[in-house]
Amino acid sequence: MTKAVPADILSRLKAVLGDGGWSQDPERLAPKLLEWRDRWTGTTPFLALPKTTADVAAVVGVCFEAGVAITPQGGNTGLVGGQIPQGEILLSTERLGAIREVETFDDVIVAEAGVTLARVHEAAAAVRRRFPLGLASEGTATVGGVVSTNAGGTQVLRYGSTRSLVLGLEAVLPNGEVWNGLKHLRKDNTGYDLKQLLIGAEGTLGVVTAASLKLYPVLASRAVAMAGVPSPQAALHLLEQAKAEAGGAVEAFELMGRQGVDFALKNIPGTRDPLEEVHPWYVLAEFSSGEPGSAEAAMERFLTHGLEAGLIADAVVAQTDAQAKALWLIRENQSPAQKPEGATWKHDVSVPVSRVADFLDQATAAMLAFAPGSRIAGFGHMGDGNIHYDVLRPDGGDDAAHAARRDEGSRIVHDIVMSMGGSISAEHGLGSMKTAEAARYKSPVELHALKAIRAALDPKRIMNPRVLF
Amino acid sequence: MTKAVPADILSRLKAVLGDGGWSQDPERLAPKLLEWRDRWTGTTPFLALPKTTADVAAVVGVCFEAGVAITPQGGNTGLVGGQIPQGEILLSTERLGAIREVETFDDVIVAEAGVTLARVHEAAAAVRRRFPLGLASEGTATVGGVVSTNAGGTQVLRYGSTRSLVLGLEAVLPNGEVWNGLKHLRKDNTGYDLKQLLIGAEGTLGVVTAASLKLYPVLASRAVAMAGVPSPQAALHLLEQAKAEAGGAVEAFELMGRQGVDFALKNIPGTRDPLEEVHPWYVLAEFSSGEPGSAEAAMERFLTHGLEAGLIADAVVAQTDAQAKALWLIRENQSPAQKPEGATWKHDVSVPVSRVADFLDQATAAMLAFAPGSRIAGFGHMGDGNIHYDVLRPDGGDDAAHAARRDEGSRIVHDIVMSMGGSISAEHGLGSMKTAEAARYKSPVELHALKAIRAALDPKRIMNPRVLF
Repeated sequence: MTKAVPADILSRLKAVLGDGGWSQDPERLAPKLLEWRDRWTGTTPFLALPKTTADVAAVVGVCFEAGVAITPQGGNTGLVGGQIPQGEILLSTERLGAIREVETFDDVIVAEAGVTLARVHEAAAAVRRRFPLGLASEGTATVGGVVSTNAGGTQVLRYGSTRSLVLGLEAVLPNGEVWNGLKHLRKDNTGYDLKQLLIGAEGTLGVVTAASLKLYPVLASRAVAMAGVPSPQAALHLLEQAKAEAGGAVEAFELMGRQGVDFALKNIPGTRDPLEEVHPWYVLAEFSSGEPGSAEAAMERFLTHGLEAGLIADAVVAQTDAQAKALWLIRENQSPAQKPEGATWKHDVSVPVSRVADFLDQATAAMLAFAPGSRIAGFGHMGDGNIHYDVLRPDGGDDAAHAARRDEGSRIVHDIVMSMGGSISAEHGLGSMKTAEAARYKSPVELHALKAIRAALDPKRIMNPRVLF
Repeated sequence: MTKAVPADILSRLKAVLGDGGWSQDPERLAPKLLEWRDRWTGTTPFLALPKTTADVAAVVGVCFEAGVAITPQGGNTGLVGGQIPQGEILLSTERLGAIREVETFDDVIVAEAGVTLARVHEAAAAVRRRFPLGLASEGTATVGGVVSTNAGGTQVLRYGSTRSLVLGLEAVLPNGEVWNGLKHLRKDNTGYDLKQLLIGAEGTLGVVTAASLKLYPVLASRAVAMAGVPSPQAALHLLEQAKAEAGGAVEAFELMGRQGVDFALKNIPGTRDPLEEVHPWYVLAEFSSGEPGSAEAAMERFLTHGLEAGLIADAVVAQTDAQAKALWLIRENQSPAQKPEGATWKHDVSVPVSRVADFLDQATAAMLAFAPGSRIAGFGHMGDGNIHYDVLRPDGGDDAAHAARRDEGSRIVHDIVMSMGGSISAEHGLGSMKTAEAARYKSPVELHALKAIRAALDPKRIMNPRVLF
């Protein structure tokens, strides 16, 4: 457990932050101490609200000297408890809100940690550019948060995770020093890439205060289609065809089981069944291209071949943006649509793309044996091998009884994932939720190396001490 | 200086490697001790020729225990001295030559460190895939080498450096332990990404023994053109147009000054002047697409608009693969074509794309003031802001006199680069050549962090101790 923070340290923090720069008001703190799915609630003696990088450095400096722990928080959209303090100082980046620079020749935007992803999208659009990181939570998720968790989302297949989209970082390291690595460079081979270490470090190696992010051209053509498919195995073959037909133009290739589609139709207003008949699985594919008409042509070839080969039972192509949005609405609400259905064991796993179908088969057989009657919603980014595999209590079952078996059930799922060379956290991170699981599955060689790196950069372990390992 | 290696250590190394697994034969060693531009020659008491990862682990384990230093070497194509031992044990990866796996659903190839880049290309082509890392030295450069130096090349604009193309690594860490991180995963957020630290570490954090590399679809259309342009500033505007016209389809956007084209025409057999008239600068652009005809159409739009806007004076589009090859021949021989011209100061620098033209202006003015009559060949990957900026002695000048002023001249160039937020090594690395320069330009905060990481993973500093920092 975290030690109590001495009163003189709080006084020093108040002094360096000044009026408006901190809070101990329970009402101000409350929304920052509650995880949005209500899974974690936190406590903190002090909320730091730095306005500048120098403020952040001052806070971390005071805490480093005194050995006082800090939990950094962005938009509080994390799903693994990493941003919820348990007695630590809470450092919110919400006031680090400037977009410092937009440079179109460099195709770079420099945004501070507290800028939301949606604001980055708007700023990019204003100069006819695009920042290709899309999250359901983009109106709330912040730059500091997506960088610190290496966020994924729906466009990883084409553009990679956040890691691939960052050209430079500014961060306050655990000793309170400011590292200015805010470059606009596409190439820089001058030793270890420190930013790569901070990306996905979940705040354990310092506080990211700003990032240089890559911008891309606005695309001239886009095609979105939903296809009913007989099986994940068929979807796998379709994915290979899509990549071949569309070259680099496959923007998203998402898989959903019918159970999840049913939840969306039942619980999310405005959704409607995308195809006339009911299909066991659905593929939502999006192609895009810089060439007018090119994405549409590739989509037509793809669907025609898929229908001819019997890999697709039926399909619909969005004819308007509104229709495309309606198709995406079903996909993006796969998780929210589960909320009214009761207790669930959620898994954010990845396996090699070639093993997605095997994974779904094996995991579902194991879950139905372990928890008969469970309702299984498997969906996700098939193109990346990333499946959100959620096991809900039986219809009319008991929430508490289901929740009580979560760890045991998840262990079975994770064992299957690891037997396939997969990952127990594809895009959400480890946070405080999966530290024990990570310790179980990571090799001692790797754990030893990762801990040595952490100790080297944060010898007093003040940065988010409860998370990772 | 490196200490002499005790005889009993050499005996132990011979024992673990067995017959054929080592050499002390000067003739066998000679080609591995000479850098290809003859700039560095090395010495070593012992060449280790491990055949397996276990062999590598045994060698590193013996050396770690005894505190004996090791220099790893791949294809010996490095340009900054990092692979040339100065008294250390030389560990060559040449016998780690297996392609362990090619998986088309995962779009992954797993190759051992000693496999050449050309063999990776062949293996990819055999399954109708593509590994988009192209280097002039690809027939000799190896997987371990390109990973350890985060090699760049001509396709970074579209696909990123080697860092973006690696899905997993296997490596022997400095303590002799084997880290198996050979995943096929596109997404894995379970803590610090150890492979990112090893990529570009120039052998200082361990020996990369194998890599999982990303494969891409073979492309359906390709267009290559050479344009004569009035200035780098015009080229900058053209680059922005190319990105807008071609969406994600700009594969390469290279800039060359006439001086370098002249060297190629004079010294490289088979080259011919690409355009009727002489132009001060040339852009070599390559577009590609998964859609048949798409790249060609985008290229036509791009050239038409460029000519109309006065940004292009004249242009030629390759009509055949042979013509495309002929255009690339001029670009790829920019460096070899300099060799008969005498002493040169070479720089592998990057600046923000928006500053490339400024950099060329400022650097050339400074060089002509500092070394009047110098012949300046500036060329490179304009799309990445990466310029190879080479300053040759005056025609008929004295090689030794020019070489003697190299450090002073390079300092001027590097100071200009750094004043623009650039990098003194865009793609070649620091090696032993640029350690002092790196120490000069990196911030103390960053240097301190990087050294702490190195010490944490290699407490005895046995891995390539002369390089980086």
